[in-house]
Amino acid sequence: MSVASQMLDAYPKDLGDVDRAKLTACIDACLECSQACTACADACLSESDVAAMAECIGHNLDCSDICQATANVLSRHTGYDANGTRSSREACRTACRSCGDECASHDMQHCATCAEVCRRCEQACSDLLSSLG
Amino acid sequence: MSVASQMLDAYPKDLGDVDRAKLTACIDACLECSQACTACADACLSESDVAAMAECIGHNLDCSDICQATANVLSRHTGYDANGTRSSREACRTACRSCGDECASHDMQHCATCAEVCRRCEQACSDLLSSLG
Amino acid sequence: MSVASQMLDAYPKDLGDVDRAKLTACIDACLECSQACTACADACLSESDVAAMAECIGHNLDCSDICQATANVLSRHTGYDANGTRSSREACRTACRSCGDECASHDMQHCATCAEVCRRCEQACSDLLSSLG
Amino acid sequence: MSVASQMLDAYPKDLGDVDRAKLTACIDACLECSQACTACADACLSESDVAAMAECIGHNLDCSDICQATANVLSRHTGYDANGTRSSREACRTACRSCGDECASHDMQHCATCAEVCRRCEQACSDLLSSLG
Repeated sequence: MSVASQMLDAYPKDLGDVDRAKLTACIDACLECSQACTACADACLSESDVAAMAECIGHNLDCSDICQATANVLSRHTGYDANGTRSSREACRTACRSCGDECASHDMQHCATCAEVCRRCEQACSDLLSSLG
Repeated sequence: MSVASQMLDAYPKDLGDVDRAKLTACIDACLECSQACTACADACLSESDVAAMAECIGHNLDCSDICQATANVLSRHTGYDANGTRSSREACRTACRSCGDECASHDMQHCATCAEVCRRCEQACSDLLSSLG
Repeated sequence: MSVASQMLDAYPKDLGDVDRAKLTACIDACLECSQACTACADACLSESDVAAMAECIGHNLDCSDICQATANVLSRHTGYDANGTRSSREACRTACRSCGDECASHDMQHCATCAEVCRRCEQACSDLLSSLG
Repeated sequence: MSVASQMLDAYPKDLGDVDRAKLTACIDACLECSQACTACADACLSESDVAAMAECIGHNLDCSDICQATANVLSRHTGYDANGTRSSREACRTACRSCGDECASHDMQHCATCAEVCRRCEQACSDLLSSLG
């Protein structure tokens, strides 16, 4: 059981009818995706043809920042704001889709791994959006 | 002229027909709002009736994280992704509205200042959304 | 194998004689600790006696921010700056120790879990400091 | 008067004998430096010879993350932890020095502006370290 899941179980108030498995899957996916994107940007910077990776780096950095903010927002339940968290998940899903598409268009192993992690996070955001509205 | 504005002027490639004044106003508003929300959460924590401020603190922390991510996204132009930046601005506008409403319902000076800063940032995001689509 | 570890293996240049297992353990510990601290601050906010948790929340929020920044710094190797990363790991170790001590002084399950995660991250930073100097 | 300064004045408890002018100068410098470094990394990515800027981008990204975390830590006073904030200021001063040195070695306007902002932030951290110990 991930730490995010343990922390959710320890929350002292009622969480309503949120799907806990989908929520913790989404938090964990956001953390993983944020790190993968930071690392992919850095790996792109060390490629011999950096110029060809400039746009990919831009996507990676945006996606990393948005995933990190979303992981934080999803980890908070006190003063829960349905509109705020929905728009945050939507921004995260959009960033993951753009970054995943960009990474999938490159051949390097770091881009392949990052693309896969972005797809997973995009899917986790979609699943949570379907579940929470 | 703010540093954000100086940095924008020094960007080496063409920025297209972006409204530079609105873009830098939005970056500056996001930075200011992120700090105000962090400080407001902390000030709320030191109020004698903290329990009454718990929801406000939750809004403050979410808004701070989203403003910070948005300031970063708006500061990047390489590999510019119109969908990604639009959904990020929308998330920011939504978070600022929620947090501004919550802060405006409290009497403390830190909440009054924070509400004002949230309104300014919400407006700056709206202005940029109207301008950029 | 964690995503951080897969991304490290995909880095295209020579990493020198860094201990890869310790480096990825530290990145993973920072990500986990940042999330646990964000969630612990939020759980503290929902305790019936919030006032008693105000200082704990302050520690949680600082520790979360520093762990997040450190996870990012440790995920970058291009333009590696030995002084910068060392002082970042030191700040992270200090924040984890303070937050772990504070959380360990409370009885709630979320504080117990968070304290444990802070200890693990403090140890991972120490191990990496011993290894990298 | 900056928003950071207004928020500090609205803090409801005693702040001890902290030098308020130096504290708010340091918060403002961290916010400014974080943005300048994010923008400088992005501008470097759009230079014709990106490969020559790869190390500079690495420094920029580290410095931006550390400045952002430090701005947050400095904006919190509840549960104030002298060791934690000192090590955070030290990490920030170190990152600003490294990034300022790197940027100062390049001719572009964005690097010149960023170097200047890094120097200012390094100085603000030093001033606050002298003042607070």
